Amino acid sequence: MIDIPKGFQFAGARCGLKNRRNDIGILLSDRPARAAGMFTLNEVRAACVDYSRQVMASGSLRAIVVNSGNANCCTGQQGVRDNAHMAELAATALGIGPDEVAVGSTGVIGQLLDMSKVEKGVAEAATKLGQDPKPFMDALLTTDLVEKHASAHISPSSLVFGVAKGSGMIAPNMATMLAYIVTDADVTGLDLDAILRRACDKSFNCMTVDGDTSTNDMVIVLANGASDEKPTELDFEAAITDVCTSLAKQVARDGEGATKLVEVIVTGSQDPKRIARTIADSPLVKTAMFGCDPNWGRIMMAAGRAGVPFRKEEARLAIRANGEEHLLFEFGGPAAFDPKRVSTALKSDQITIDLNLGKGDSATIYTCDLGYGYVRINAEYHT
Amino acid sequence: MIDIPKGFQFAGARCGLKNRRNDIGILLSDRPARAAGMFTLNEVRAACVDYSRQVMASGSLRAIVVNSGNANCCTGQQGVRDNAHMAELAATALGIGPDEVAVGSTGVIGQLLDMSKVEKGVAEAATKLGQDPKPFMDALLTTDLVEKHASAHISPSSLVFGVAKGSGMIAPNMATMLAYIVTDADVTGLDLDAILRRACDKSFNCMTVDGDTSTNDMVIVLANGASDEKPTELDFEAAITDVCTSLAKQVARDGEGATKLVEVIVTGSQDPKRIARTIADSPLVKTAMFGCDPNWGRIMMAAGRAGVPFRKEEARLAIRANGEEHLLFEFGGPAAFDPKRVSTALKSDQITIDLNLGKGDSATIYTCDLGYGYVRINAEYHT
Repeated sequence: MIDIPKGFQFAGARCGLKNRRNDIGILLSDRPARAAGMFTLNEVRAACVDYSRQVMASGSLRAIVVNSGNANCCTGQQGVRDNAHMAELAATALGIGPDEVAVGSTGVIGQLLDMSKVEKGVAEAATKLGQDPKPFMDALLTTDLVEKHASAHISPSSLVFGVAKGSGMIAPNMATMLAYIVTDADVTGLDLDAILRRACDKSFNCMTVDGDTSTNDMVIVLANGASDEKPTELDFEAAITDVCTSLAKQVARDGEGATKLVEVIVTGSQDPKRIARTIADSPLVKTAMFGCDPNWGRIMMAAGRAGVPFRKEEARLAIRANGEEHLLFEFGGPAAFDPKRVSTALKSDQITIDLNLGKGDSATIYTCDLGYGYVRINAEYHT
Repeated sequence: MIDIPKGFQFAGARCGLKNRRNDIGILLSDRPARAAGMFTLNEVRAACVDYSRQVMASGSLRAIVVNSGNANCCTGQQGVRDNAHMAELAATALGIGPDEVAVGSTGVIGQLLDMSKVEKGVAEAATKLGQDPKPFMDALLTTDLVEKHASAHISPSSLVFGVAKGSGMIAPNMATMLAYIVTDADVTGLDLDAILRRACDKSFNCMTVDGDTSTNDMVIVLANGASDEKPTELDFEAAITDVCTSLAKQVARDGEGATKLVEVIVTGSQDPKRIARTIADSPLVKTAMFGCDPNWGRIMMAAGRAGVPFRKEEARLAIRANGEEHLLFEFGGPAAFDPKRVSTALKSDQITIDLNLGKGDSATIYTCDLGYGYVRINAEYHT
């Protein structure tokens, strides 16, 4: 059984919006919780994004209702009405106000929600609330292969717990495709918005599967104070950041068709994040990682096209896996390495690409490889 | 036999830098030709790029020598010396000065050229010069499936002829992976650099296969005046632009693993090129095109993440193929279309995505779909 913060309950139900597993989830706090959210910056936003941002303007929430299998995005005014109705259905079933419920949706864009199914699913989920978060996590998944959750203790009696989903259309810009974080800490006096923003900038916003920013991205944190513990900002932010970083890595590792987690670290640049992101999004780098090919020239090519000046004569490129480091490029030319040994190292399910360009800042981006599975999932995931 | 401008000769030879086909090519003008070039803006540039830019500072060239199978990039000072030596070998064999020869290289990054092979190949090619450009075109290809060439008459007796190679690592930033354009027009008094820049901006710089800008991109135009025709700037620029656009479309259609050419037209925006490029580079859009899936939500998602504001309520998205137009999205919601008919239309080998966002400028980007073939080629194209 997964340990969860006090005062929260979870539920999931299956109403037929997707083929298998749960597709409606409810998360409930037994008292009003302080709430902060980060939402996609995509110009094309789903109804749930605008709605949740609006109800969270009060800084407080009781519940979140989520569906998977349908993003309810680009569905016009009917989509906006359906989203509000989904919040009302949850509020009625839970005996709270509709302005205390945030909504999340994930799935195909451009199709109207089947509201008779949603009605049934919400009603059923509301009767199943309990301490086990698994049915709720199931209800978030689409092409995900595994559930993602993470915990961090702030103190022995106060916990941060987070769940996330996401596998494709992952290049969060302010948030990722559905992550919900709950804590029983009492965060009175802390700037929850600012803490969440900083944690996201170091975690979800440093992750990419395919460079495609979703229309439905949202990260919400609820702090209900049920533990009566008032953490310091430092302790609380460390715990939130830990949970967000763990979830971000889990999402990258479970990228559509991925076989490995790839961590790209760029050091010594005026804009290391931009270079790291360009490497992490390069299809040629990602296919080389899939093929376990020590084709480091593609990494240098990607770094060079990021639009950030550097001198290749000062660059040093290494790959780390299984506790070994392999130097690949130095002093403007190839290093003496054994391609077979590097290729074997690249079979690891966790690779670090380390590019040092001289003096300057450092940044890390989490991504995955690009293989046949990504094409299969996305060429065959028909509307 | 392909029609070529007067005063030019071509040759190709096979020296073993790649597995099959020619790998050394020579292009020669029988008199000094006015020359202009566009080169990659990647920070990591091959030796041939810096060398060719330098020798072309005079504005004049006699010949170009090219190898495929090895990019001679990230090869340190030895790579710089090998590149200069390759130019000298060609100059000696052709009886001209080394500063009259530009060099092009394409292939794997980070490996030293086998100069004994290059020596043999250049010597052999120099003895085979003739009117047929095919052996030269062969010598440019790497993962390309087809040769790319295009012609445009400026007048009945004056011609522009161009060849290009490129299939992966294609997102030209100022030029594409090796394109050479020759004309017998007399361009005295015309600004050849400016004309080439404008032609590239409308053609090669509007093309992407995988968003990865090569380290070796170059477009060179040679005008030798052998026809004694002095075209107007208007006529000459139209012919150059025609040839460049045709070559750019051929490169996109022959993208690694591609099954179709996809033309993305965005209208009515303050930055339509950025939106069109984001759509064209989106892995989710490209895999949907490969899967013949009318999953238009991905197109709207990609448009929305380009970082250019628009209102989705004013957007109108259509797909054209086989002379039919299918409206997919309008007034903020899905249009009434028959998914099966659209899916059938998407089986065409040429698709146009047409996104109208209201008032503003228009831009077109050429790209291709993303299928299993791209992964196969790039996961298995081992160093």
